[in-house]
Amino acid sequence: MDESKKGWVVTVSLKLPTLQDNTADTDRLLTAVKTVLKTDTVGIDLKLVRQLPALIRKSKFRVVCILFKDQNRWILIDIKDATDTGSIAGLAVDLGTTRVVLRLVDLINGQPLADIAFDNPQISIGPDILARIHFTNEPDGLKTLNKLIIQGLNHKVDELCRSCNVRPEDVYLLSLAGNTAMTHLFMGIDPHWIIREPYIPVINRPGLYRAQELGIKINPFARALIFPNVGSYFGGDLIAGILYSGLNNQDQTAVLVDVGTNAEVVVGNKNWLIACAGAAGPALEGGVTRMGMMAGPGVIDKVTIDPDTLEFKLHTIEDEPPIGICGSGLIDLAAQLFIRGMVDFRGRINPLVCKDRLVEIDGLRHLVVVPEISSASGARLSISQADLDSLIRSKAAMYAILETITSRVGVALREIKTFYLAGTFGSFINPESAISIGMIPDLPIERYQSLGNSSLCGAAMALRGEEYTEKIDEIRDRITYLELNVSSEFMNRFSAAKFLPHTDLSLFPSVVIKK
Amino acid sequence: MDESKKGWVVTVSLKLPTLQDNTADTDRLLTAVKTVLKTDTVGIDLKLVRQLPALIRKSKFRVVCILFKDQNRWILIDIKDATDTGSIAGLAVDLGTTRVVLRLVDLINGQPLADIAFDNPQISIGPDILARIHFTNEPDGLKTLNKLIIQGLNHKVDELCRSCNVRPEDVYLLSLAGNTAMTHLFMGIDPHWIIREPYIPVINRPGLYRAQELGIKINPFARALIFPNVGSYFGGDLIAGILYSGLNNQDQTAVLVDVGTNAEVVVGNKNWLIACAGAAGPALEGGVTRMGMMAGPGVIDKVTIDPDTLEFKLHTIEDEPPIGICGSGLIDLAAQLFIRGMVDFRGRINPLVCKDRLVEIDGLRHLVVVPEISSASGARLSISQADLDSLIRSKAAMYAILETITSRVGVALREIKTFYLAGTFGSFINPESAISIGMIPDLPIERYQSLGNSSLCGAAMALRGEEYTEKIDEIRDRITYLELNVSSEFMNRFSAAKFLPHTDLSLFPSVVIKK
Repeated sequence: MDESKKGWVVTVSLKLPTLQDNTADTDRLLTAVKTVLKTDTVGIDLKLVRQLPALIRKSKFRVVCILFKDQNRWILIDIKDATDTGSIAGLAVDLGTTRVVLRLVDLINGQPLADIAFDNPQISIGPDILARIHFTNEPDGLKTLNKLIIQGLNHKVDELCRSCNVRPEDVYLLSLAGNTAMTHLFMGIDPHWIIREPYIPVINRPGLYRAQELGIKINPFARALIFPNVGSYFGGDLIAGILYSGLNNQDQTAVLVDVGTNAEVVVGNKNWLIACAGAAGPALEGGVTRMGMMAGPGVIDKVTIDPDTLEFKLHTIEDEPPIGICGSGLIDLAAQLFIRGMVDFRGRINPLVCKDRLVEIDGLRHLVVVPEISSASGARLSISQADLDSLIRSKAAMYAILETITSRVGVALREIKTFYLAGTFGSFINPESAISIGMIPDLPIERYQSLGNSSLCGAAMALRGEEYTEKIDEIRDRITYLELNVSSEFMNRFSAAKFLPHTDLSLFPSVVIKK
Repeated sequence: MDESKKGWVVTVSLKLPTLQDNTADTDRLLTAVKTVLKTDTVGIDLKLVRQLPALIRKSKFRVVCILFKDQNRWILIDIKDATDTGSIAGLAVDLGTTRVVLRLVDLINGQPLADIAFDNPQISIGPDILARIHFTNEPDGLKTLNKLIIQGLNHKVDELCRSCNVRPEDVYLLSLAGNTAMTHLFMGIDPHWIIREPYIPVINRPGLYRAQELGIKINPFARALIFPNVGSYFGGDLIAGILYSGLNNQDQTAVLVDVGTNAEVVVGNKNWLIACAGAAGPALEGGVTRMGMMAGPGVIDKVTIDPDTLEFKLHTIEDEPPIGICGSGLIDLAAQLFIRGMVDFRGRINPLVCKDRLVEIDGLRHLVVVPEISSASGARLSISQADLDSLIRSKAAMYAILETITSRVGVALREIKTFYLAGTFGSFINPESAISIGMIPDLPIERYQSLGNSSLCGAAMALRGEEYTEKIDEIRDRITYLELNVSSEFMNRFSAAKFLPHTDLSLFPSVVIKK
C-alpha cells in the first residue's frame, strides 16, 4: 500500500478512521497528499468535497488524485478509486492563427497518445489576426470568434479522444499556448487594445482556470493552464517554444528563431533571455504569394534547379501533382533561383537567364514554376516579382533582427553554437537555402536544429509535472523584450540585408553564385 | 492620487499605459495591488479579466478593489470605479441549529450596519440536529435540508440589505460560523458519518468558496469564508467565539464557556488551547421544559423570590404577560427555589415550603410559576420535578467539564481570572444564579464576562481584515480536544456535582441557603 507520485498523479492509501484518529475525510485525504507532495496547502473544489465521503469508502480508502500546481499552490483536480482503470489524460494545444494542433498526453507517464490538427475556424471571419480583432468591434463579434474556436476545439477533442479510446471526461488538464491575440480570443477577452497604440493586452499572465469556465468540454473539474505572454507581440506560443528548447537552462548562449506570421527571435542562456519580434513572415506564409499555401499533399516543399539545364526538380508532399508551394519550398525556390543566376542580387528576375519561363501577367513579371500541363488544377503556378520583393523584405527583416538582438547583448552571430528553428514552417526550412538568400547567418549547418512544433511540444511539457510548469513564469519574467520598430540601428541593418544574400558579401562566404 | 488599504478594500491609481510601459491591463492592476498588499500573488477570476479593460478605462485608471486573503494567497474579488458611491459590504452569519443571525458589515471600516435573525427553517424537518442528520438518509433529504437553509438565508439577506439601503450585489464577502453538522448541511455535504462511530466529519477546514457555488445570492464574484471545526462536536461557531474573545492572544489563562445545545469549554492562553464539549445544555434550551422557549417578548428572563413571603417576582422581555421561560430565567428560577428552600440540595420540590404552589399533573410534581390568571395564554406555567432533574444533570455536566479540563492542564478553577460566557443564552445567564446552583465556580462576579453572540461577532471580525482571518486556522490548529465521554474522572466529578450547589459545600462558600 505504497504512496506514489507520477507526473500529476498521486496515489495514496488512507488510514482507516478510528475513535483515536477521527480526522475529517477531506483533511485525512489532503494530509496524505500533502505528505507526498511535501507541501502545506492543497486546494479542493466544493463539488469534490461533496462526493468525497462516498468515494473514499467505496474505494476502500485507496485513491488516485489528479493534481496541479498553480503559483506555489497545489490544487486537487479530481479523485478516483485506485482500482478504476480509466485513462488519466491531459491535452496540449498549439493555438495558431491559421492552424490549431492538439496532442493528447498520458498524465501519469507524460507520453503522447495522439495528435490532431485543424484549420482555425476563425479563418471564416478573417484570414489574419488583424481582421479578426477588427471584427470584435461588431455586435457580438468577440462572442462569435470565441464560439468558433471553442466549438472547433470541443469537436476535435472528441475526435482525438475517440481515436485513443479515451473519454473526454478522462481529460483533466488542458495546456494551451498561442499568440497573445489568439489567447485573448480563446479566453473571450476583448483584444481591441492589442493593435492600438500603446499596444496593451488585457492580460499577460492568464494562468489557471477551470476548463468548464472557458467552455471546453472535458472533465468537469479539469483545469486549463494558459501560457503567459510578454506583450502584444510575444505570445505564449514562444514561451512554450523556449520551454521546449531548453535554451533557458543552458550555459552557452543560443538563439531560438520562430518563423511564422511574425519572425520572433530569442537569444539567451540560463542567466538571461532577450527577445524581439518583427513582421518578417507574411511573405513566407500561405496566402501572400499567389501559389503559397500551408503544407499539405501536393504542396511543393523542396526545389532544386539543375545548374546546367536550369530544369526545375520539385518535390511535393506525398508526391501528389503540385497545387502550390509552402514557406520552406519558397525559400528553396528563391535560393535556387538566386544561385543559378535566374534572379540577381536585388532579387530581380533576369530575363536573359529565365527566358521562356518569364511571362507577364497584368503588367507584372512572373516566373513559371509549374506549367499548366503539370499542375494538379491545370492552372499555371508562378511566382511574381512582387512575391520575390516581399520575400526579400521578410528575409532581410529576419537577418536584421538576428544581427540587432545579438549585437545588443554583445555576442557575434558567428559565436552562437546553436540556432533552434521553430514555428509553423520555420522548422521545415532547409538551412542551406535560408543561408543562400541571407535569411540566417552563414554558419556550419550542424548549428541549426529543427524543433518542429515547439509551441505544441512546450504545451505538452507542462503536462509532465511541476518541474516544467514552474519554469514557465520564470521564463516569462526573465525575458527582456526589445522593441525594434523604433530602432534606427535595426532600420540600417534591414536596408543592408535587402540584397541577396547581403550587401556585405563577406558575411556569406559559402554562398557561391553562378555568374 | 494616493494608494490606500482599508479593511478588505484597496484603492489604486494606475499609471496610464505608454509605448514605454505597455504592461497588460490585468498585470498593471495586479502589480499596483501587490505593491499595496506587499505580496507576490493575487488571483483573479476570468469573468473579472473580461470586464477589466472597459472598466479601468471608464474609471480613468483609478479603481477600488475588493480583496480577500485565503491561505496566504490574495484573491481579487471585484473591482469598482473609484467614483462609484455604492456600498461595499460583508455579511457575517451565525448559523445555529435553532436560530440563525445575520449581520451586515461595512467592509471598509468594519462597522456593523444592521442585524437580522430568523428561526432555522430546517426546524420543519427536525427540531434537533440528530433528526436532521437522520433525514439525510431519505431520498433528496440532504438536498431538501440544504435548500431550506440556503433559501432562508437568501430571503433574509434581501430583507437585511433593504433595511440598510444596500443591494445584495454590494455584498462581497460572507463569513459563516456554525456547528459542524450545520456547516455540512449549509455546504450540501452529507453529515451521515458525524453521528456514527468513529464520528467523522467530511471536512474540518472548509475555507473559501464562491458564494454563488453555495447558492447564496449576493455579488456574483463574492467569496464565502466558512469557519473550520475541530471535529464532529467542536464547530466553527466556537472557533469564531475564541477569535472574538481574544483568549488565544492573552498571557493569562482564561476560560470560555459556551452554553447552547451543548456545553463547550475552552481553556487557554496565547501558548495553548484545550477544549471539550459535552451534552450539558438540552435542559436549558427551549423545548425541554414544557414552558421553556427561546428569548422573546413575554418570556421570563429574570426571577426573584421574596425571602419572607416567597412571592415570585418575574421579569418578562418587553414586560409582556408571561408566555414561557428562557434558559437564563430557568437558572434564576432554580437558584431562587434552592436558596429559598423550596427545593432541597438534591433538587427535590419541598411540599412543606411550596405549599399550594405544588400541583400534581399526570402523577408528576409540578411547581406553579405563573397561575392561569396571570399568564398570557390563560394556561398555567409550571416547572416539573423532571425539568428540575434535567436541569441539575445539565449544570452538573457543565461544572464537571470545567473541573476536568482545568485539572488536566494543572490549573485550579479559582486561579482563573477571566471566564467568558457565550452562546445562545450563556451570555444572558446571571452569574450569581449560576453559582447558586453550582453550575459555574463560586468566584467573584467580576471574573465573569458576557460575550453576547460570540459566534456572530467572531464571524463579523473576519470581515475586518487579514489580521483576524489569519488567526482562524491558527486557533483551529492549536486546539487540543479532550474526549470526556470516555473519562472516568469526568464521570466521578459529574456524580459529585449532581447536588445543589455541590456535594462539597466548601467549594461554594458564598451560597447561603434558607434553612
